[in-house]
Amino acid sequence: MRQVAILGIGQIKIDEHWDLSLREIGGHAAFAAMQDAGMEKVDALFVGNMLSSLVSAQNQLGAFFSDWIGLWHQESVKVEAACASGAAALRAGLMAVAAGDIDSALVVGVEKMTDKAGHDVTAALATAADADYEVEQGVSFVGINALIMRRYMHEYGWKHADFAPFSINAHANAIHNPFARLHQKISTDQFEKSSMVATPINLLDASPTGDGAAAVVIVPAEKVVSLKGKPRVMVAGSASATDSIAVHSRKDPLFLSAAYESSRRAYEMASVTPQDIDVFELHDAFSIMSALSLEACGFAERGQGVRLGLDNEIGPNGRVPVCTRGGLKARGHPVGATGMYQIVEVVQQLRGECGATQVDGAKIGMAQNIGGSGATILTHILKAE
Amino acid sequence: MRQVAILGIGQIKIDEHWDLSLREIGGHAAFAAMQDAGMEKVDALFVGNMLSSLVSAQNQLGAFFSDWIGLWHQESVKVEAACASGAAALRAGLMAVAAGDIDSALVVGVEKMTDKAGHDVTAALATAADADYEVEQGVSFVGINALIMRRYMHEYGWKHADFAPFSINAHANAIHNPFARLHQKISTDQFEKSSMVATPINLLDASPTGDGAAAVVIVPAEKVVSLKGKPRVMVAGSASATDSIAVHSRKDPLFLSAAYESSRRAYEMASVTPQDIDVFELHDAFSIMSALSLEACGFAERGQGVRLGLDNEIGPNGRVPVCTRGGLKARGHPVGATGMYQIVEVVQQLRGECGATQVDGAKIGMAQNIGGSGATILTHILKAE
Repeated sequence: MRQVAILGIGQIKIDEHWDLSLREIGGHAAFAAMQDAGMEKVDALFVGNMLSSLVSAQNQLGAFFSDWIGLWHQESVKVEAACASGAAALRAGLMAVAAGDIDSALVVGVEKMTDKAGHDVTAALATAADADYEVEQGVSFVGINALIMRRYMHEYGWKHADFAPFSINAHANAIHNPFARLHQKISTDQFEKSSMVATPINLLDASPTGDGAAAVVIVPAEKVVSLKGKPRVMVAGSASATDSIAVHSRKDPLFLSAAYESSRRAYEMASVTPQDIDVFELHDAFSIMSALSLEACGFAERGQGVRLGLDNEIGPNGRVPVCTRGGLKARGHPVGATGMYQIVEVVQQLRGECGATQVDGAKIGMAQNIGGSGATILTHILKAE
Repeated sequence: MRQVAILGIGQIKIDEHWDLSLREIGGHAAFAAMQDAGMEKVDALFVGNMLSSLVSAQNQLGAFFSDWIGLWHQESVKVEAACASGAAALRAGLMAVAAGDIDSALVVGVEKMTDKAGHDVTAALATAADADYEVEQGVSFVGINALIMRRYMHEYGWKHADFAPFSINAHANAIHNPFARLHQKISTDQFEKSSMVATPINLLDASPTGDGAAAVVIVPAEKVVSLKGKPRVMVAGSASATDSIAVHSRKDPLFLSAAYESSRRAYEMASVTPQDIDVFELHDAFSIMSALSLEACGFAERGQGVRLGLDNEIGPNGRVPVCTRGGLKARGHPVGATGMYQIVEVVQQLRGECGATQVDGAKIGMAQNIGGSGATILTHILKAE
């Protein structure tokens, strides 16, 4: 299996892009990544997307984007794993480059969500859950996460305010990220008084959706010659794992076993442990997911994920810096694109391009992308050389 | 890159399966393939599907099916490339096994189409075309193919009846395939008098949709030890190529350049020429596509694809046997599953399991799966050893 490096990155600000079509949003990130990589052509295109058939009546995004980007005749395909579609597309591209079948790939995570009314998007997002056994009962996707959060609070004795540090950290970091959707600080008081969405999840526990796209160019590591002083960023670990799609089927609804399994395999592949991770872009779609992810990946004991926030360990200067560019909570969560934003952000950290939220001396970064309420989870570990 | 073999195959009869859910349809083919391979577990699952979000309000089919099949914690993902989703999923699985990251994979193509009204399915199928530049004008997917067929007849001087042999051959072969949707012979007279769908495409030019699933288990070739007297079926060639998604953007709307490009690469990878292909499962979604596919893949000169049918060369005993199990026209076209039915059928031919439609001494078979009106095309070449 060939070693793979990330040569270029690109992204567009997450926003309500009323003036940009699906094509233009994805194209923006794709062209930026190609330019950053100094390449005009790649062998293949891998697109991560969840909702385009439901929101934009457009399928076959592989051919759709290779057409727009000017990659006619090249291989192209779309990969979907709900909110983990971005990282899943990266992994599909990685395998093709690692196998030696292609010598370069562009991976784009893209989502346009604001062309439909809110209730339509809520229904579209619910396709990440189990249609027969969850959605059929009338529960929304936020509702499922609210049930998990309530159970966690009951089981381990935490109060709602104990989750505040996750959102406060994300908002504080996003201010320094020009590509983030939200650019305002929040306080514990605001967090507590925010409008309720689905008890106990309020607006400031939940990530905002939006239109966005992020992309990388990957190549075999041995083909990387000049990087103009930037470190070579290697994909040191990549793993994907699943759990039952319906939360009620899991032995323990408070343990992300797919996060445990995919992070375990990624650590092994990269020959690292949680202690070696300098920055962790986790999937904080809801504040409860930050806690569960930290626990499943070995950064905290069961039921103690929130303590990392309360102990001031998650900031850019903390022991386990998370969401250093704003996370899903404040950078935004254009679902099928999110996994690729996380990868781009880890590359920015390893290149030392993060300014006020730069993690000093970051050499090893991890990104974890969660599909559904923990059913598909991908973990990638990047290393700067 | 490791060599990959197909160890097991499975399929379900294509039909209106009112009594079976999406889960059960895909599970049926998956379990059959696992049983045929003599395996109880695989490292990963790759699902090809186009319409489940639109028809069944269900996304994230990777986790959805790994849950149902009992592959918890294994890697799993869905791949989509419109009607080429099946072959695209196979290629994603191939790359992962070839890279050495996993040692076995189950690939399932699955589609449930009959849970929605016909006009809803027509709208869903149109997501394979360009939403902004084709569908926006009111053209359906059949309509686009009708425009191509009309132009072809005009350009090369063929009559509608000249396409009859493609459909007659497909129907004659399907009678011997218990998994086929349609089991009746048709005549040239019936072909000519059939109800019009979109001039010049009538009912007997067009493939029927349906509910279906087909699956294979793939492993590194060196791990295949005992096959109980069956030949070892190797994946000798695999390639994917794209063209502009909107037909009007192509330099020549009568040439499937993505078929040319993907077959060229697959021939090269397998070290074969068109003359070496013993059986060709092509993508006869409409009879015009049979002609265009034969031309682009080197079996006929430009504009002369229909001649192969008129000259009796496409039957199981002909020079270029196509659609030996009924093709899309009579076996049926459950869109995201079709590419996997083609692969399963080529394996059946190479194993000598096709009875009345067996191609004598078939050693090398090709399958070509087309997404949209030629935008994504995958070609696979299998060899018996």
